[in-house]
Amino acid sequence: MISAVDVIRAKRDGGRLTDEQVDWVVAAYTRGDVAEEQMSALAMAILLNGMDAGETARWTAAMIASGERLTLPDVGRPLVDKHSTGGVGDKITLPLAPLVAACGVAVPQLSGRGLGHTGGTLDKLESIPGWRAGLSNKEMFDQLESVGAVICAAGDGLAPADKKLYALRDVTGTVEAIPLIATSIMSKKIAEGTGALVLDVKVGSGAFMKSLDTARELAETMVALGTDAGVHTVALLTDMETPLGLTAGNAVEVAESVEVLAGGGPADVVELTLALAREMLAGAGVTDVDPADKLADGSAMDAWKRMISAQGGDPDAALPEAKESHVVNAPSSGTLTRLDALAVGMAAWRLGAGRARKEDPVQAGAGVVWHARPGDEVTEGQPLFTLLTDEPERFERALQSLEGGYDVSADATYEPTPVVLDRVG
Amino acid sequence: MISAVDVIRAKRDGGRLTDEQVDWVVAAYTRGDVAEEQMSALAMAILLNGMDAGETARWTAAMIASGERLTLPDVGRPLVDKHSTGGVGDKITLPLAPLVAACGVAVPQLSGRGLGHTGGTLDKLESIPGWRAGLSNKEMFDQLESVGAVICAAGDGLAPADKKLYALRDVTGTVEAIPLIATSIMSKKIAEGTGALVLDVKVGSGAFMKSLDTARELAETMVALGTDAGVHTVALLTDMETPLGLTAGNAVEVAESVEVLAGGGPADVVELTLALAREMLAGAGVTDVDPADKLADGSAMDAWKRMISAQGGDPDAALPEAKESHVVNAPSSGTLTRLDALAVGMAAWRLGAGRARKEDPVQAGAGVVWHARPGDEVTEGQPLFTLLTDEPERFERALQSLEGGYDVSADATYEPTPVVLDRVG
Repeated sequence: MISAVDVIRAKRDGGRLTDEQVDWVVAAYTRGDVAEEQMSALAMAILLNGMDAGETARWTAAMIASGERLTLPDVGRPLVDKHSTGGVGDKITLPLAPLVAACGVAVPQLSGRGLGHTGGTLDKLESIPGWRAGLSNKEMFDQLESVGAVICAAGDGLAPADKKLYALRDVTGTVEAIPLIATSIMSKKIAEGTGALVLDVKVGSGAFMKSLDTARELAETMVALGTDAGVHTVALLTDMETPLGLTAGNAVEVAESVEVLAGGGPADVVELTLALAREMLAGAGVTDVDPADKLADGSAMDAWKRMISAQGGDPDAALPEAKESHVVNAPSSGTLTRLDALAVGMAAWRLGAGRARKEDPVQAGAGVVWHARPGDEVTEGQPLFTLLTDEPERFERALQSLEGGYDVSADATYEPTPVVLDRVG
Repeated sequence: MISAVDVIRAKRDGGRLTDEQVDWVVAAYTRGDVAEEQMSALAMAILLNGMDAGETARWTAAMIASGERLTLPDVGRPLVDKHSTGGVGDKITLPLAPLVAACGVAVPQLSGRGLGHTGGTLDKLESIPGWRAGLSNKEMFDQLESVGAVICAAGDGLAPADKKLYALRDVTGTVEAIPLIATSIMSKKIAEGTGALVLDVKVGSGAFMKSLDTARELAETMVALGTDAGVHTVALLTDMETPLGLTAGNAVEVAESVEVLAGGGPADVVELTLALAREMLAGAGVTDVDPADKLADGSAMDAWKRMISAQGGDPDAALPEAKESHVVNAPSSGTLTRLDALAVGMAAWRLGAGRARKEDPVQAGAGVVWHARPGDEVTEGQPLFTLLTDEPERFERALQSLEGGYDVSADATYEPTPVVLDRVG
């Protein structure tokens, strides 16, 4: 007979969990027979002592088995999904899903809300008047067939073990365990029934993974889990020392995404969107379409408008604006040599763009806009940041977050970092 | 502001907890502001990453501060307490407390019940008809003055943080953390207000500490904590590869203790009782009395009878006997070269002498009696063990526990192990 204490002790003492132990502990936790305090002790032991590839694969399967598994219908074209581990200013899903749909591949993108300093895709889209995140499975399937792209909330039935465990890890200092991050992401993605998956694993101050080594370990773990489960999986390791584009927030990121779909937008956002689109197309077996053409000819924008309209949104409506703004000027003239993603993310969060607890509301108009990217020349006194919020008492703490988060130098030379750092898979 | 997650992360990442963090987390846990699942993650991080002497001392002080602190009244003689980390057949407290009282020193022995394969002192004494463990502080003080020895249940007011944490550790695989064992024991002993303390730290298969090194680490940690708190503290490291004496259970251990008080009893039990008595007397500053004389002249037995009577027990009443017994005979002739404490402890526990959950009852008559000790010659077919229980269906699993737990050899030479392995303090 298996007991929770035996499973905890095995991992605590550096041992390997058997398949039977993994199956039992995940199922018993889901139905409440393993208590929260037992699972948190196990999570800490996993964080400190690790899990090998076999344990991780079994854990993923057990989390999938804790709930329903979607069977996506034949929508007349290949299906491919994408997941980002979360970053600052990471609006890539917004232009990417309609772009890939415009290339003839269907994108079922089940997304979440933001918690902490990284934004949530659904929070961003909800700043569009009328748009709704909640769809039935049938609505989702219909939209996949008619539009080819859907971004909506994941149903409660997928991997309920993960939902429970994620909430527990958040309050017990056990979020940062690579096997638990990997199994959390992959159990949901595999349960969603996609045939191919592209992972955007962020690296740097604004990401969970602060170093290239840990990010690579996470990427390799997830690619192995996907491949084992029969899902064609590839990961790009991408830079998150610097925030993406020129905006972090909700409505401001939607506006920037629309610029990209209109053929403009910041170069790094365009580059990463195209890199991920190419991986998704390759994963779906489509090799004869260049996604850059679909940005240029307006077909990606058409797909965006159809996608937003199908979920009740008005793609042409004016986006909400914050009631108050505060401008931070450049302290001196020179090159912007550093812009820290965590500092910007914390500032946007403190302005009201993100939430501290999952039941908190977010402000649609809140966020940070920066007017230069690392490598750009700035002149003393020119606007460097615009801070946006409905509640001006939030400016002070947001400004504290930004402090020390950027450097302007007249003599230092700037070494640009590539957007895509590596590829796994 | 301190948060539970920050404290957990600090320890998880191998850091040192500040005094402020320790004070806060213990107090907040006691009042329920730190959740059970947060404390269990912290306990696992402490088990795997340790705490230094300063953290451990602060943790002990915070646990003491979570409740009341006894101030023992002047009872006209010095006070000294004893604690054992728990072993199989460890009935030493029973003869020891009245023996030391007979030497002119008062022994306030607040004890606990057994959980798992090690017995509890209160469970053993409760097999004496009429004896009760629960005393008010006034009853305890009066008995200390009139008899000089009291063994009773600790009140709920002492170190409530420890009570809560101990129950949590028991179900989360975090019992075996040396800093948590040390602070649990020492917070209660210091809160009890004793001026001197002798610790019996068990080493071997039947103890929490399986190796001399970990036992020494635990002993050194506890001696430092006691000394820091102004309590004269000494520890003996004693053997628990082999169970103590010839009995493990409740009534059978009381009977063996009475034999020792009558001047007889197994040599190892007498030796350890005298060794601990001498340390207790030295700790109390009494150097002119030889406790062996008090066993020989019957004054220790007199103190025992007064101690039992004062708590409602009849020291002359017949002890309960198990309804069923089962004898295991020696498989061959030769020397008994090994008798494993854990095997015997598990057998006694499975026969009903111990409990699996703290709300379970125990059987007064259940237990194991062995008829030889390592080094003794046995003849094939002679009785080696007598198993005792009220429920004969328990014999099978008890026999399984004993299997492989002893060796009889015709040619191997037996190397005796000393009872007292080392002394710290």
